Amino acid sequence: MISFESDYITGAHPEVLKKLIETNFEPQPGYGADRFCESAKAKIKKAIGIEDADVEFIAGGTQTNAVVISTALADHEGVIAASTGHINAHEAGAIEYTGHKVIALPQKNGKLEAKTVSDYLSDYYADESCDHMVFPGMVYISHPTEYGTLYTKKELTELSGVCHSYGIPLYLDGARLSYALMSNNTDVTLHDIAELCDVFYIGGTKCGALCGEAVVFTKHNKPKHFLTSVKKRGALLAKGRLPGVQFDALFTDDLYFRIGKHAIGLAEKLKKIFSDHGIKLFIESDTNQQFPVLENGMMKKLREKIDFCFWEKYDEDHTVVRFATCWSTTEADLQALEEALR
Amino acid sequence: MISFESDYITGAHPEVLKKLIETNFEPQPGYGADRFCESAKAKIKKAIGIEDADVEFIAGGTQTNAVVISTALADHEGVIAASTGHINAHEAGAIEYTGHKVIALPQKNGKLEAKTVSDYLSDYYADESCDHMVFPGMVYISHPTEYGTLYTKKELTELSGVCHSYGIPLYLDGARLSYALMSNNTDVTLHDIAELCDVFYIGGTKCGALCGEAVVFTKHNKPKHFLTSVKKRGALLAKGRLPGVQFDALFTDDLYFRIGKHAIGLAEKLKKIFSDHGIKLFIESDTNQQFPVLENGMMKKLREKIDFCFWEKYDEDHTVVRFATCWSTTEADLQALEEALR
Amino acid sequence: MISFESDYITGAHPEVLKKLIETNFEPQPGYGADRFCESAKAKIKKAIGIEDADVEFIAGGTQTNAVVISTALADHEGVIAASTGHINAHEAGAIEYTGHKVIALPQKNGKLEAKTVSDYLSDYYADESCDHMVFPGMVYISHPTEYGTLYTKKELTELSGVCHSYGIPLYLDGARLSYALMSNNTDVTLHDIAELCDVFYIGGTKCGALCGEAVVFTKHNKPKHFLTSVKKRGALLAKGRLPGVQFDALFTDDLYFRIGKHAIGLAEKLKKIFSDHGIKLFIESDTNQQFPVLENGMMKKLREKIDFCFWEKYDEDHTVVRFATCWSTTEADLQALEEALR
Amino acid sequence: MISFESDYITGAHPEVLKKLIETNFEPQPGYGADRFCESAKAKIKKAIGIEDADVEFIAGGTQTNAVVISTALADHEGVIAASTGHINAHEAGAIEYTGHKVIALPQKNGKLEAKTVSDYLSDYYADESCDHMVFPGMVYISHPTEYGTLYTKKELTELSGVCHSYGIPLYLDGARLSYALMSNNTDVTLHDIAELCDVFYIGGTKCGALCGEAVVFTKHNKPKHFLTSVKKRGALLAKGRLPGVQFDALFTDDLYFRIGKHAIGLAEKLKKIFSDHGIKLFIESDTNQQFPVLENGMMKKLREKIDFCFWEKYDEDHTVVRFATCWSTTEADLQALEEALR
Repeated sequence: MISFESDYITGAHPEVLKKLIETNFEPQPGYGADRFCESAKAKIKKAIGIEDADVEFIAGGTQTNAVVISTALADHEGVIAASTGHINAHEAGAIEYTGHKVIALPQKNGKLEAKTVSDYLSDYYADESCDHMVFPGMVYISHPTEYGTLYTKKELTELSGVCHSYGIPLYLDGARLSYALMSNNTDVTLHDIAELCDVFYIGGTKCGALCGEAVVFTKHNKPKHFLTSVKKRGALLAKGRLPGVQFDALFTDDLYFRIGKHAIGLAEKLKKIFSDHGIKLFIESDTNQQFPVLENGMMKKLREKIDFCFWEKYDEDHTVVRFATCWSTTEADLQALEEALR
Repeated sequence: MISFESDYITGAHPEVLKKLIETNFEPQPGYGADRFCESAKAKIKKAIGIEDADVEFIAGGTQTNAVVISTALADHEGVIAASTGHINAHEAGAIEYTGHKVIALPQKNGKLEAKTVSDYLSDYYADESCDHMVFPGMVYISHPTEYGTLYTKKELTELSGVCHSYGIPLYLDGARLSYALMSNNTDVTLHDIAELCDVFYIGGTKCGALCGEAVVFTKHNKPKHFLTSVKKRGALLAKGRLPGVQFDALFTDDLYFRIGKHAIGLAEKLKKIFSDHGIKLFIESDTNQQFPVLENGMMKKLREKIDFCFWEKYDEDHTVVRFATCWSTTEADLQALEEALR
Repeated sequence: MISFESDYITGAHPEVLKKLIETNFEPQPGYGADRFCESAKAKIKKAIGIEDADVEFIAGGTQTNAVVISTALADHEGVIAASTGHINAHEAGAIEYTGHKVIALPQKNGKLEAKTVSDYLSDYYADESCDHMVFPGMVYISHPTEYGTLYTKKELTELSGVCHSYGIPLYLDGARLSYALMSNNTDVTLHDIAELCDVFYIGGTKCGALCGEAVVFTKHNKPKHFLTSVKKRGALLAKGRLPGVQFDALFTDDLYFRIGKHAIGLAEKLKKIFSDHGIKLFIESDTNQQFPVLENGMMKKLREKIDFCFWEKYDEDHTVVRFATCWSTTEADLQALEEALR
Repeated sequence: MISFESDYITGAHPEVLKKLIETNFEPQPGYGADRFCESAKAKIKKAIGIEDADVEFIAGGTQTNAVVISTALADHEGVIAASTGHINAHEAGAIEYTGHKVIALPQKNGKLEAKTVSDYLSDYYADESCDHMVFPGMVYISHPTEYGTLYTKKELTELSGVCHSYGIPLYLDGARLSYALMSNNTDVTLHDIAELCDVFYIGGTKCGALCGEAVVFTKHNKPKHFLTSVKKRGALLAKGRLPGVQFDALFTDDLYFRIGKHAIGLAEKLKKIFSDHGIKLFIESDTNQQFPVLENGMMKKLREKIDFCFWEKYDEDHTVVRFATCWSTTEADLQALEEALR
């Protein structure tokens, strides 16, 4: 069946798979000490433009968030996030499992505004009993957000400024970073992110890899004994080469960016198809996720031919659903959708 | 360089890789709801001979132990293990991170004896203040153990009997289960394990897969809402197909057993090579890990040509090291070792 | 200095202290197995009108919340609370420290409405990916709330109904329960609370004891091995007699109720004093906490003679502060306040 | 009934109780900001001879251990303790609940020898895969130990030396410190402890207070935002005055030392009584806990008249039991024991 259900419906991009095949028989040490990880790290550091950054690989996104946040926070601290942020809404309490609170603040189109954070911080420290509360110790954002929206460079710069004026790190969850960078409507580059954020991750799983996320610490701020902390959380792969080889491929010949570009091109066509059929979009997204509002009868009928994802109830008669494109989405998939919509 | 460093030095067995390639473009739902997981689960249930077992896939071994143990234990309980058990010695405190104590008991050649457990349990409940202590809520064993040794069917049956007479589950860590099952010196079958243990895992990472372990609950004892608990620990793969496809391959045409047989055959030859060169083995292992005691000068020289793993200091002049075989070890590797030893 | 800062500014009510003195030399076993705990539990069960309830004593309020909530929740669950609820706002993340999320919902005058909870639960289970989120496993309310407000019997009954229709327990934090029960404007009795809630605690620290809270499980739902779980959280007092003796005194000759009545009487006079001086109250409270809105200059001047507590900024020129009465507040304290306000 | 069951069988020493009565009506701020805490801290700092130490009060011993250890350890670290250490054996897993491993090492008469620790640390860092294990981040000892034994100044100095040569803190659990300091057979002073340990606690609960332990950080090493971390663990008392007043009394006119001396005097007489009756002691203890080995028939008979505590099985016919003296033990209690033994 044709599927737009998510960007993790298929395996790895052929160039990634090819590299796994080519390197399969070469013996290398475990736990990330292999030459593929080394090579991938060098390429990533070059791509972000910060040669002395620290790069580490972790198997999945929720795990990466839990590892990064819990090793960055001090005991008395929690992490600020948009109420719709992945760590607050869709990770089954993985951050709280590490013993830290997610401090959820109001959002706008999935984004956290600098003023919201700034007001919260200023009110927090004005409260005489703030030491009976959870200290805000980090700001988490996702880019693209869970609604496919993007921060502008101005917004990101302001958020970064607020964080740094309070001495707390800004962490960017780039599970779908490839699509953010290749959006037709963004002024934020990979280098900008590396400059403005203290730590971020470059998503692999949802951008063409079988699994794996690359965490980047940009300010000599990798937690001490990070490998041990990663292992303690069950997040250290014995075959560390698995993400290593894949990220080496993703950052060879701009593959990571080509994957994003391909998916964005098809997502733009998706938007046009919905528009042509008078289907409204729930939110204006410039990335690979689109959120059409479907009339319930049509939704039911469409599901017979096309897979997509329930998002939320819109009203009694309509439902918001999600369509996502990825490296494996084809023009033929779009045609099939058009036919199904007729 | 020739490497006997571990059984995770290379990629996936070619038949596993082939299946990843063949299935790469087929869209399937995420989070383990794909048809490959379904097929792999069916094959595993058939192989163990318990049709109504519950099978779940998790990315790595330490993570699997943390997930299984922490979801099985009640709040007031800890897990019994041999002092040399992986969870006690080499997982960076991953079990304690979940809030539960590892109750370490004395071992013999890496094995936990039924009497040791029985005595501990009986003393525990005889203590009038036992409710101020950690209740023993599970017994953890590894098979093969960390020293490559194996439980006999009699030993496993006795352990199982002790556990069940106290109403606590027996959990078997089968990170290297393939090599246990194919050892020339074992009377324990996969079906025996499934019958005698309440939960165990079939190791993938160290037995020919890129990553992935298959947890098997044999007594309708899968924790409720297990998926959510797995996700909460960051252990749920978005592309659940990754372990699914691989275990589907591993349990097709007995691949899992063929991998074990291959490695065991070469391990037996390894033993002979060491014996021929007058090199003593630290422990009698019938599986794929061998522990020669090397004179320090020889060790240094050998390391120039062959990779192997430091295990522990033996005396001032000797060191215990580990040699492991796996799917990718070849006769040529053994010849290279022989030459290096001359 | 005259102080209305809180209801924990002085020691124990004289009748409580007297009992500590009388019993001081009598040897009794530790950890709550003493005859004072036994007597206190019997009196509490009689007062609530449920003879087969389970009563346990814990040293403080935050600890009680952490112990009760974390032992009641399953691994995959979190606890619902008003955003202003003590566990969400003023316990330094003590619930998250146990690995569980506080699911904060909108409040009205510090209260959680049944409809708010009902809507949340119904939306939660309507979401197809709800097993990637934190399951709502308990509802937490405080009575009086953090704003001194009270649930009506109708409101409490509705909340209880919603909880029970979803099979989740209702937990009431009664840190200041004495003042709720003796309010001039309540139709909720101690027996009502015991009937409608699954677990609640009768606050000692803020109602006349030196320390100690009495947790009451009303539905044969005390977690198994509760003593061990309490000890594991560091919350088991060696001299368990300390809360035992005090609660025995508090529930002798209706002392707990007399303390509430005394404080409520003076709180009503406080309200009149503020009203007489044209000082607006931030919220309509019928309990022992009152929240006048003071002009900043007046606040500063008043603080020279009277202690009270900062609550929150009202506007540029005004501040909300808290005045609390308790067992030790006197008519003379009120007169001093009146003089200071002149 | 006459009881030697423990040193927490009665209330507070009369001088402690007197101070609670005297100060009962004086309003003071909560959470340890009262003048009693201030005064007690000053007296303790004077008694230990380190004027710039940091002193904090916590309600109970297990809680104190959990708070101190978990705030001192880094994420990748665990705490070394004797296998018989209270945190390893009798705290229901309270340290593991904070996510950290207790690294249990062999003991001698309840004591941890410097060489044992030194060997462990040196082997640990010699292991090439030590970053897959739990880093030893603190050494915990109890003084007196759980067996009533005492470290000599030489032993304590050596342990301190080993710790500091590896840069890890030495923590001393002084739940019964009063009895250690007043033993007839010790050369360790309170000042020695303060000099040699990085953090220790002066036990109140078992030394004459109703509850409360005084944690002393001697090297400007109080964790940042300690109050918030204490609150997060549910260990912050609203009426912080409760331990404050009591420790103020305990450190007035050497009461803490007088209590120890009284109990030690009677414990020496206890030893003589057992010796006179041909009853062997399980271990040579110079503090307030004595461990006679009773023939089972005699034990049963004695229990009809005297309360004492089961310790452990000695052999088929004998049992080790514990007798403890404290502030409230009298000569009459000893006489009653003698009569019962006749």
